[in-house]
Amino acid sequence: MAQTPRVLILNGPNLNLLGTREPEIYGSATLDQIEADCRARAAERGLAVDCRQSNSEGELVDWIQDTRDSFDALILNPGAYTHTSIAILDALLAVGLPVIEVHLSNIYRREDFRARSYVSKAALGIIAGFGKAGYVMALDALAERLIKVEEA
Amino acid sequence: MAQTPRVLILNGPNLNLLGTREPEIYGSATLDQIEADCRARAAERGLAVDCRQSNSEGELVDWIQDTRDSFDALILNPGAYTHTSIAILDALLAVGLPVIEVHLSNIYRREDFRARSYVSKAALGIIAGFGKAGYVMALDALAERLIKVEEA
Amino acid sequence: MAQTPRVLILNGPNLNLLGTREPEIYGSATLDQIEADCRARAAERGLAVDCRQSNSEGELVDWIQDTRDSFDALILNPGAYTHTSIAILDALLAVGLPVIEVHLSNIYRREDFRARSYVSKAALGIIAGFGKAGYVMALDALAERLIKVEEA
Amino acid sequence: MAQTPRVLILNGPNLNLLGTREPEIYGSATLDQIEADCRARAAERGLAVDCRQSNSEGELVDWIQDTRDSFDALILNPGAYTHTSIAILDALLAVGLPVIEVHLSNIYRREDFRARSYVSKAALGIIAGFGKAGYVMALDALAERLIKVEEA
Amino acid sequence: MAQTPRVLILNGPNLNLLGTREPEIYGSATLDQIEADCRARAAERGLAVDCRQSNSEGELVDWIQDTRDSFDALILNPGAYTHTSIAILDALLAVGLPVIEVHLSNIYRREDFRARSYVSKAALGIIAGFGKAGYVMALDALAERLIKVEEA
Amino acid sequence: MAQTPRVLILNGPNLNLLGTREPEIYGSATLDQIEADCRARAAERGLAVDCRQSNSEGELVDWIQDTRDSFDALILNPGAYTHTSIAILDALLAVGLPVIEVHLSNIYRREDFRARSYVSKAALGIIAGFGKAGYVMALDALAERLIKVEEA
Amino acid sequence: MAQTPRVLILNGPNLNLLGTREPEIYGSATLDQIEADCRARAAERGLAVDCRQSNSEGELVDWIQDTRDSFDALILNPGAYTHTSIAILDALLAVGLPVIEVHLSNIYRREDFRARSYVSKAALGIIAGFGKAGYVMALDALAERLIKVEEA
Amino acid sequence: MAQTPRVLILNGPNLNLLGTREPEIYGSATLDQIEADCRARAAERGLAVDCRQSNSEGELVDWIQDTRDSFDALILNPGAYTHTSIAILDALLAVGLPVIEVHLSNIYRREDFRARSYVSKAALGIIAGFGKAGYVMALDALAERLIKVEEA
Amino acid sequence: MAQTPRVLILNGPNLNLLGTREPEIYGSATLDQIEADCRARAAERGLAVDCRQSNSEGELVDWIQDTRDSFDALILNPGAYTHTSIAILDALLAVGLPVIEVHLSNIYRREDFRARSYVSKAALGIIAGFGKAGYVMALDALAERLIKVEEA
Amino acid sequence: MAQTPRVLILNGPNLNLLGTREPEIYGSATLDQIEADCRARAAERGLAVDCRQSNSEGELVDWIQDTRDSFDALILNPGAYTHTSIAILDALLAVGLPVIEVHLSNIYRREDFRARSYVSKAALGIIAGFGKAGYVMALDALAERLIKVEEA
Amino acid sequence: MAQTPRVLILNGPNLNLLGTREPEIYGSATLDQIEADCRARAAERGLAVDCRQSNSEGELVDWIQDTRDSFDALILNPGAYTHTSIAILDALLAVGLPVIEVHLSNIYRREDFRARSYVSKAALGIIAGFGKAGYVMALDALAERLIKVEEA
Amino acid sequence: MAQTPRVLILNGPNLNLLGTREPEIYGSATLDQIEADCRARAAERGLAVDCRQSNSEGELVDWIQDTRDSFDALILNPGAYTHTSIAILDALLAVGLPVIEVHLSNIYRREDFRARSYVSKAALGIIAGFGKAGYVMALDALAERLIKVEEA
Repeated sequence: MAQTPRVLILNGPNLNLLGTREPEIYGSATLDQIEADCRARAAERGLAVDCRQSNSEGELVDWIQDTRDSFDALILNPGAYTHTSIAILDALLAVGLPVIEVHLSNIYRREDFRARSYVSKAALGIIAGFGKAGYVMALDALAERLIKVEEA
Repeated sequence: MAQTPRVLILNGPNLNLLGTREPEIYGSATLDQIEADCRARAAERGLAVDCRQSNSEGELVDWIQDTRDSFDALILNPGAYTHTSIAILDALLAVGLPVIEVHLSNIYRREDFRARSYVSKAALGIIAGFGKAGYVMALDALAERLIKVEEA
Repeated sequence: MAQTPRVLILNGPNLNLLGTREPEIYGSATLDQIEADCRARAAERGLAVDCRQSNSEGELVDWIQDTRDSFDALILNPGAYTHTSIAILDALLAVGLPVIEVHLSNIYRREDFRARSYVSKAALGIIAGFGKAGYVMALDALAERLIKVEEA
Repeated sequence: MAQTPRVLILNGPNLNLLGTREPEIYGSATLDQIEADCRARAAERGLAVDCRQSNSEGELVDWIQDTRDSFDALILNPGAYTHTSIAILDALLAVGLPVIEVHLSNIYRREDFRARSYVSKAALGIIAGFGKAGYVMALDALAERLIKVEEA
Repeated sequence: MAQTPRVLILNGPNLNLLGTREPEIYGSATLDQIEADCRARAAERGLAVDCRQSNSEGELVDWIQDTRDSFDALILNPGAYTHTSIAILDALLAVGLPVIEVHLSNIYRREDFRARSYVSKAALGIIAGFGKAGYVMALDALAERLIKVEEA
Repeated sequence: MAQTPRVLILNGPNLNLLGTREPEIYGSATLDQIEADCRARAAERGLAVDCRQSNSEGELVDWIQDTRDSFDALILNPGAYTHTSIAILDALLAVGLPVIEVHLSNIYRREDFRARSYVSKAALGIIAGFGKAGYVMALDALAERLIKVEEA
Repeated sequence: MAQTPRVLILNGPNLNLLGTREPEIYGSATLDQIEADCRARAAERGLAVDCRQSNSEGELVDWIQDTRDSFDALILNPGAYTHTSIAILDALLAVGLPVIEVHLSNIYRREDFRARSYVSKAALGIIAGFGKAGYVMALDALAERLIKVEEA
Repeated sequence: MAQTPRVLILNGPNLNLLGTREPEIYGSATLDQIEADCRARAAERGLAVDCRQSNSEGELVDWIQDTRDSFDALILNPGAYTHTSIAILDALLAVGLPVIEVHLSNIYRREDFRARSYVSKAALGIIAGFGKAGYVMALDALAERLIKVEEA
Repeated sequence: MAQTPRVLILNGPNLNLLGTREPEIYGSATLDQIEADCRARAAERGLAVDCRQSNSEGELVDWIQDTRDSFDALILNPGAYTHTSIAILDALLAVGLPVIEVHLSNIYRREDFRARSYVSKAALGIIAGFGKAGYVMALDALAERLIKVEEA
Repeated sequence: MAQTPRVLILNGPNLNLLGTREPEIYGSATLDQIEADCRARAAERGLAVDCRQSNSEGELVDWIQDTRDSFDALILNPGAYTHTSIAILDALLAVGLPVIEVHLSNIYRREDFRARSYVSKAALGIIAGFGKAGYVMALDALAERLIKVEEA
Repeated sequence: MAQTPRVLILNGPNLNLLGTREPEIYGSATLDQIEADCRARAAERGLAVDCRQSNSEGELVDWIQDTRDSFDALILNPGAYTHTSIAILDALLAVGLPVIEVHLSNIYRREDFRARSYVSKAALGIIAGFGKAGYVMALDALAERLIKVEEA
Repeated sequence: MAQTPRVLILNGPNLNLLGTREPEIYGSATLDQIEADCRARAAERGLAVDCRQSNSEGELVDWIQDTRDSFDALILNPGAYTHTSIAILDALLAVGLPVIEVHLSNIYRREDFRARSYVSKAALGIIAGFGKAGYVMALDALAERLIKVEEA
């Protein structure tokens, strides 16, 4: 019998402040609410999810490495490390799982330094600007992909 | 009684060749199939859609202008004009409707000249790299938004 | 007896939306009002004017080419094509008539990508930031020049 | 009874040499002739004008500061300081009067270093490439604006 | 029996003005003469040619797309779109036919903005600076290639 | 009764080596001495201070986040992260407390890569080049500001 | 007996307009008030101060040169010349006195062209963003340094 | 009686390795075969050719200088010196003969550093991407030009 | 009697995945095997080695700081931090021990962003492209240097 | 009888400090000594010289303008204005006299911002790096040129 | 029986001056000593070496081409040509032998123009900053590689 | 008794063509005439000169190296290698003799790529724009310097 596909949902620096941090940019939902939404949708779609957040680039690299043995896909909002972390890019390239990059805001219409994403070079797809809904959209997209593979 | 929200799905240059054009980048679905998928999903979600494609920047500008009177939202894959058209950006800014920018491929891991999007500066959100599924994801996202507004 | 000098007034993409499009930048006059003002002033100054607008770069090139046989001067607001169209620049260089470049807003204090004008390289003069009055100023300047040549 | 609006016409470095300096670029009119034209047109339009020229950036800043108490608008041809003077820009931002930037030649088709204007960031409008007529065009534009305000 | 190879000769914006447009750069031959030369040489070489010109980027994209079903090769002088059109590049990549890029002048010794060619990234070969002879050289080169393939 | 304002003094990577690390650039005082000076001055000015140092970008982000509940202001010497950390910038923007950026050396006369500060974009003020005295200057500046607010 | 150390406080272009010029950026204190504050604090700290302001780059260079014979230190707010004047930098390098660069606003979070300071390359230290308090902070820092030298 | 026009065919560094060097880029023909083809075609076209190859920039400059007395035209494949040699450009400018620049591959779709050609600034025309056929195309183009001049 | 020189071998982010991570770039040896090789060679050469790996920039900075008291030299493969970490550069400058920078792959022929090394500015020497052998080469080079110093 | 040619020797900002200002860069001669040397050599060569120095860009422009009526040539060391003054360049272009640009130091091996000279674009020749001898070399070069013209 | 592997050791411009040329950068060993060291080590490792030096780019290209028939590997210190020679890069790509790039100094911490290496794009590995020892390290690395291949 | 100082006068590529090569830029004197002038002036000034010209970068490097044993100073016109040769720069740095860089034309007002001089970084002084007189000026400057050293 096919195993339930497992998805790691990883949030980077300052995303633990969601809801209180510049709500005109990032929305009023807290990270807890976002993760609850993700768990609910995952259950509906037959996926198992694990949600983690860290402000540390190194810890994010550690967790991405862990996906090799324990997860089938990754949803990643790298926060500010999107623009500066080649280490996270290298970790993604090393594990080789399908990765969806999610941003709450449309990073391409903000400061110039937010328009460069190292992480995109390893991402399957990018969802930006949909606020908290972006995570659920990513889950839906993965569900379709992972279940189909399971079923094939 | 609330009116059915109308969505224009607009595809730019060379997207009429989908299915035969570099399928390793753009996938094997034809534009007809994509538009059929969109119509099906729109029906499910209570949206009316109109689908158009043009290779002409000017015609795309014309159609975007038309959305002001006839549509409630826009899903736009501007193709190569993503990277070169300020005229399309200005049209989007002028009409002021919610716009979702869709790309079949992840444009941020291809040639450097494909990583700049003028259109993003007027987009609500961006979905890139999910192939034909990106259009349906955009419809879903709009459905939630437009219906909610209708209901509010 | 000297012929009435003919002036083509050409407006580029999105200028048909004037009055409704971002009025805080472009003012509240419609293109119809601007063209009416131009016709009135032209009559006073002994000039014949023809007014056209297109969202298509190619159509603008076509019309600029036509000025060679039918017009004595050109007033051109190239809109967004100001910044991206070498084809329009080449058309202007090819026909060699006096051209006045008009912009409603002061394009030099907006986004960086609006500060580059290919068209300026073929323009006799530039008038920017005077709103709809800029067209009339351009007509006045041409009137002086064209009538003087007629009379000389 | 409404006061006559006062306009300061300010010319920057080397404009005192007009008529003899590279006439193929700057025309054959002297600064005296230009100022006489301006005085004549101002009288017709119900404006009072004062004309000054300096080669000194500091003196130009001094005079721009003076406009706050004694003038209602400013016509400024900053000459070479157009491209290098943030001090003049700051003075213009500080006094906050309407400013029209005038250039005899079309600075946008000359050397690259002449295409950058700090001054434009504080200008209401720009008139370039019309030779000495540019000053009169600027006066006309101001007349309309200032009288209208008086009358309103 | 082998079919006559068909070649589309496509000229971009402003090339319809040849002979009158800046003859010191582009020569004195008209586009009609160039196309007549091409037809004559094609007949000698056993090729069928079709000649088209457009000022519209979108129409050029349309015609390039058409080559997939109706032509065996393409000779393209993209005029000003050489330097700005990713849409034409994408059309060329999509149809995958052999393309020869022709320029009347040596674009690499003119303004900097003419030295960048998007189109070159999809061209088999480039011929620049030979005036109208460049088209015939391109035909000869294609003839050799297409006939050889026919005969092989 | 007004509460004693609390200030967090945060030092970034390698500042724990002060006194031994390149003393010709950074001076001979140790971090302990600097923190002792800060505590002494804070006592005199009626401020409570907490001093922390970390080599980890993530830990610095954690501590900046903590200031939201426990501190009234922040003195931050981000060391090398000044030039590379958007995560620290985002944390500062998120907590929104007054921040003073301190550098021991004048970073603007050293290598080019030290002249860019992401952190400055969220700082109230910057003090650079005064060695260990810079921290005390920052405390004095905050004292004035925080006490005044208390008293108002 | 030791001589009272003398400090020149030099303000550049447009700083004479303080209090009325863009108060949301530069604060509401006038230059007279700032200079009075400086004189008061200097008296407390045993320093003699002289305060000057000029809009002229050349006059600022003259005055900086004068410090060699008549002053022991310099507090300099170069205003807009911060970003454009190599002549002021060279004067500072030539006289070799301790110089503190003061800016009312945090120049590093404004327009890009304000983030480059030639003057910083000759400054002992930089204080930016503290409004009028910055001058007093600079005086305090100099007092400590100059008195200590006197006493040593 | 008219003299046979003489053409120097000059090949730069590493072109002596043709046939064995990266044949997927440069083709399988050896330099001997290319030179034989050129001699054959030259004989047909009434031209005398001399063929030389050198890996030395200085020797290429020497030979280009020699063309002034002994040759009527030059076909030049400068190899890697295309992108780095101003000395060869200067030699071409000095001798002033018609020069055709030939490249085996389409240098404009390879590494960025191969897209800059100093030599193009002195070339009559450029032929790139046609493999060994490019030399013969250049000979044909020269034949037409040189014979015509002879006959005129 | 001379002490055995101690060498710290430090590996940065993702190097713990060696052997499985993109083996076509990084080789098939695991980090354990590399460290075993290093220990064996160190024993032969009379050196004591300690081997550590971390994905955390801050932890790498901590360990580099520790070398001041406990080690005589450092072999460092900073992985992705090579290109982004000024903090590691500063730590190396602070401790002042001889450092050899090792890269498994030739970073200078990969993506542009991998060609910049902050770390190189503090390195004695660089060894890149030799796979796991690079570490042993570094040990040999240090052995010669450290033993010689011991013996002198 | 021929008139004695007159030469203006103009020194820009900070050159009045020569002899005391950074003598390791600018030498130990004072400006008085340099001017005395120039007067002596001018007398020998049959030239009349006038020597002036100013720290003010505007005054230098004034004096350059004066050369039109009173001088036959100009020797100019623009000091720091070399790199920033388009106003001085324009004055030189306007007067059109032969100008020799002199620098005491070799400005091309110092900071990058000293390697750009606007003034060179109007200079006949440049002499840099010869210390005070450069002025005499310039006088000699002018003598030859001016006398020859006189005698012709 | 296996043949002795042959290695060419090639030194570029100015390396013949070693020992006397800027010894603080390049060390005090002469090229003769370095070559003697190489011969000694090669003998120990069972390699045959040939050592050559040239100041001529063309001669270096010639010699690199020769390695195809006569050598099994190449150790190359291209001196200044490292940064400017695409011809040497092309020669290395053409011959396809294993190449080790050696630099005496750490070129990555010197002037910016020394940080770009065309040659690295064809090198197996790079050794920089180890002085004369770098050549021996390269020989050791090749020995291991070449012998192993022989034995396999 | 003091030895006659020896000066090598070295001319780079294409300078052997002087007199015929673009005389509007380089003047009508031949290299023979320039060298004769130099010999005459050297005899007057008590200097021995040797004159050489080469089109080969490597030969110029060879000859510069030779100056260490046989010459006291160098006058160098590096022609096009001025802008591209780090090898010549390194040779000049290695031999350490006084070098005067001479250019016939003012290279700073020509194409951008001629404004960069690697050679200037090793030159004592630069003389540009004086045509053939520049060599004699350089000799005079060296005479003064070399004789003075002899006499001291």
